[in-house]
Amino acid sequence: MSETNRQVVLVRRPDGALSADDFELRESEVPTTGDGQVRCRTRLISIDAANRAWLQGATYRAAVEPGQVMAGYALGEVVESRADGFAPGDLVLADGGWQDQFVVGARHAMPVQRREPLTHLLSVYGVAGQTAWVGLFEIGRPAEGETVVVSAAAGSVGSVVGQLARIAGCRVVGIAGTPDKCRWLVDDLGFDAAIDYREQDVRRAVREACPDGVDVYFDNVGGPILEAVLPSMNLHGRIVCCGAVSGYDQDEVPPGPRGIPGVVVVKRLRMEGFIIMDHAASLPRAVGELAGWVADGRLVVAEDVVEGLERAPEALIGLLAGDNVGKRMVRVS
Amino acid sequence: MSETNRQVVLVRRPDGALSADDFELRESEVPTTGDGQVRCRTRLISIDAANRAWLQGATYRAAVEPGQVMAGYALGEVVESRADGFAPGDLVLADGGWQDQFVVGARHAMPVQRREPLTHLLSVYGVAGQTAWVGLFEIGRPAEGETVVVSAAAGSVGSVVGQLARIAGCRVVGIAGTPDKCRWLVDDLGFDAAIDYREQDVRRAVREACPDGVDVYFDNVGGPILEAVLPSMNLHGRIVCCGAVSGYDQDEVPPGPRGIPGVVVVKRLRMEGFIIMDHAASLPRAVGELAGWVADGRLVVAEDVVEGLERAPEALIGLLAGDNVGKRMVRVS
Repeated sequence: MSETNRQVVLVRRPDGALSADDFELRESEVPTTGDGQVRCRTRLISIDAANRAWLQGATYRAAVEPGQVMAGYALGEVVESRADGFAPGDLVLADGGWQDQFVVGARHAMPVQRREPLTHLLSVYGVAGQTAWVGLFEIGRPAEGETVVVSAAAGSVGSVVGQLARIAGCRVVGIAGTPDKCRWLVDDLGFDAAIDYREQDVRRAVREACPDGVDVYFDNVGGPILEAVLPSMNLHGRIVCCGAVSGYDQDEVPPGPRGIPGVVVVKRLRMEGFIIMDHAASLPRAVGELAGWVADGRLVVAEDVVEGLERAPEALIGLLAGDNVGKRMVRVS
Repeated sequence: MSETNRQVVLVRRPDGALSADDFELRESEVPTTGDGQVRCRTRLISIDAANRAWLQGATYRAAVEPGQVMAGYALGEVVESRADGFAPGDLVLADGGWQDQFVVGARHAMPVQRREPLTHLLSVYGVAGQTAWVGLFEIGRPAEGETVVVSAAAGSVGSVVGQLARIAGCRVVGIAGTPDKCRWLVDDLGFDAAIDYREQDVRRAVREACPDGVDVYFDNVGGPILEAVLPSMNLHGRIVCCGAVSGYDQDEVPPGPRGIPGVVVVKRLRMEGFIIMDHAASLPRAVGELAGWVADGRLVVAEDVVEGLERAPEALIGLLAGDNVGKRMVRVS
């Protein structure tokens, strides 16, 4: 444990694409622990497309302002507790931010049962896996034999969505950004087909890969890819709106996909956003099912761990550029 | 009954905005009635924004091609029947097209109970009223005390939607295109507020007229008005996708509204399209409730009847320009 607390601080609001110069690594004192608080050593930090949105303005949380430690969902291990029910060695999930240690009020720290490897607590049993499960089964609701398309398919959520849809008996087509990712989706994760959106005409490729049309489109990206999938949607198709990464890394909000709302009307589509907090009652069941499928080998867990707090900015920039395969996180200690 | 059958024929695919020159009034012989068919005298023709979409390409029906009689939903009175269960004098609803008489197979003719005035069969008891009821109550599902915004509020569907939402105990704000329409919505139909989209900044006006935000947006237009309502949507808001008239009268599909899907994700919105055919089981209840509210004076029926088959093209062009107040139809005989 270092005497100082390293922190990655946002030093300016990003102007266009996010840059490493928007952040600075600083050292501060180890924070003190107040009544009702716990101090944690950061073990892992989750790197998510949503991090970028927090720099743009208020979303479901307040914006991160220049001068503040970059916000980030973290797995922490309690080193000092001044709160009932927490003891050194306990694991918690919290918005600890990008730093070696964080102090948080007990009611903002969610205790989490230790499972090894710890990385699974941020991937398949964490927000990514829970988001995949809730979005696919409670929003998309595919029936056996239907066709499911997922974008950002090699990402943390998409890689789970596609495998869950296969487990549910669906035809699954993934959209990803490199030939390697596409091969991995088909060869290692069991997708029926994969489309490289950088090399292929997505609209035509979706039509060809989905001869019976698309019943559920799990949309992690919005923008031109959503626009390209729309013409293949079947009557009463469902679009699970899980993210709009294509719009996060720009100053101006871009125009929306052509065909909305016209195609929604004509095909009687349902587009629906969600966050897992709104489905809290389902989450124990979700994690239980996910753990079962991991244990019996039907669900491959894909993780992309970047080593070292100081590399968090590049980990996020790379994620926004589509570098990751599976759930990206930073190991701090 | 004339010896000839006047028909309004599409003579070319519209190039940009619809023009009267895209149609021609022609005379042909009275059609003969085959086995299993009925011949009807056209009483009223429904004029709908969807008519324009049919000229653009296949929707939920095939496109109307140059050289064909313009398609249109009509109220016909049987003059000759060669089908079981139909007799002269019966009323039917069918895609009879823009002509004095039409022949249709019995299974494409929906018998309809005679109610006076006949115009109500195409407005409040017809597709418009049923669409308002299904869209509001089965898709939008507003709770008492919630805020409902409706666009094309002075139109056939919108004028009913707003009144139904008032009956359901909601705050109702209409968006329409002239000061006269706005006054009419508030003074005659009981809307809480109305916004003139040609004169006002819709985004700001919606925010001001909806201090508690918007829970249900009944969208008849798509485009910039949908974009302007999005920022005022509440968490878990619902957007009833009923039409996209703003996109019908253009050659190129315009870009979609900014904020989709980003706002859908952040606010966990549901956007859903529908057609009443998919809710057939609910329609008897819908018509029964509508008739009850008409009878007790709580529901004002707004109709805009254009006299004469030859005026059908101008009736549609005017509808697309927003000329109508209430349900527009053409009286043929």
